[in-house]
Amino acid sequence: MASCIFCKIIKGDIPAFKLFESEKVLAFLDIQPLSYGHAVCAMLPVMIILVIPKHHGALLTDIPDEALSEILRKPVAKKVAVASGAEQYNLLQNNGRLAHQIVDHVHFHVIPKPSPEEGLGISWPAKETDMDKLKTLFNEIKAKM
Amino acid sequence: MASCIFCKIIKGDIPAFKLFESEKVLAFLDIQPLSYGHAVCAMLPVMIILVIPKHHGALLTDIPDEALSEILRKPVAKKVAVASGAEQYNLLQNNGRLAHQIVDHVHFHVIPKPSPEEGLGISWPAKETDMDKLKTLFNEIKAKM
Ligand SMILES: [Zn+2]
Ligand SMILES: [Zn+2]
Repeated sequence: MASCIFCKIIKGDIPAFKLFESEKVLAFLDIQPLSYGHAVCAMLPVMIILVIPKHHGALLTDIPDEALSEILRKPVAKKVAVASGAEQYNLLQNNGRLAHQIVDHVHFHVIPKPSPEEGLGISWPAKETDMDKLKTLFNEIKAKM
Repeated sequence: MASCIFCKIIKGDIPAFKLFESEKVLAFLDIQPLSYGHAVCAMLPVMIILVIPKHHGALLTDIPDEALSEILRKPVAKKVAVASGAEQYNLLQNNGRLAHQIVDHVHFHVIPKPSPEEGLGISWPAKETDMDKLKTLFNEIKAKM
C-alpha cells in the first residue's frame, strides 16, 4: 500500500526507531508516547512500542497466520515487553475506526502501565450476566465456528 | 494451579461456554459481558470471548512460545473474531494488577465494538513528542534487545 505510513516505515521511506526486525515482523517506538514522567526504570519516560506484521492489512483477519503467530513469539513481543522495562503493561490491537484504530495497518500496542494515572486507561460498561441470553448467544456463535 | 479459575475451566471442574479447544488453547465466553443491548448482528447481545493458553502463567512472558503463537492463528483468534459477528473489535491482553489484570492466567479479550458507547473505552493520556527523549529511550531499550 503506497499510502500506508507503516508500510513506508517498513520500506525505510520514513525513519523510525526500529527495535526489532525479522522477515515478517517489525517492532518500533511509537512517536506519540502515552506517558512521560514517572518511569518504570531509572528516569526514562515510558513509551509505547508498536509491533506490526510486514504484510499490509487493516484487520487481524487480513493477516496470514505465519505473520501473526510470529508477533507473540520470542524474540518479538516477549522480548520487546522485557526490553521496554515495563513490569506491567497492556497489549492492545484495535480493529476498525469505532474500535479506536487510527492507522489501517494491523498493529499491536505494547503499553507500559507504571501507575494508575499513566498508560492505558480502560472502561468496561459491564452489564449483569443473563445466563439465558448467554446460552442463546453461545449457541449462535458456536454454530458459526 | 489448583486455585486458578481458568485452570479449573480448562480441566472442566467449572462449566463454561467453550467455543474452541485445541491441545494448547481454549476459547470461551466471558460470563461478565461488557455490552448487552445493541447487537452487531440480529438482536444478539455482544459478548466478550476469552482466548487463553492452557499453560498456566500470569504474564505473557510466562507462556511458552508454542502456546502463544497458536492464539493468533486460525482457527483460534481469527475464527473466534469472525464467529462473534463483530466487524469491529479490540484484542486486549493485560499484564499485572495496575494494567487491569484480574485473573492471573494469561488471557486475550476479544471485545466487540458495535458503537462508541459500547464495548471497550480507552483513554490515552498522550504527551507531546520529545524527539530527544525518544532517542535516548530508544538507545536504552535497543541496548537491552
Ligand atoms: Zn501498510
Ligand atoms: Zn491457570
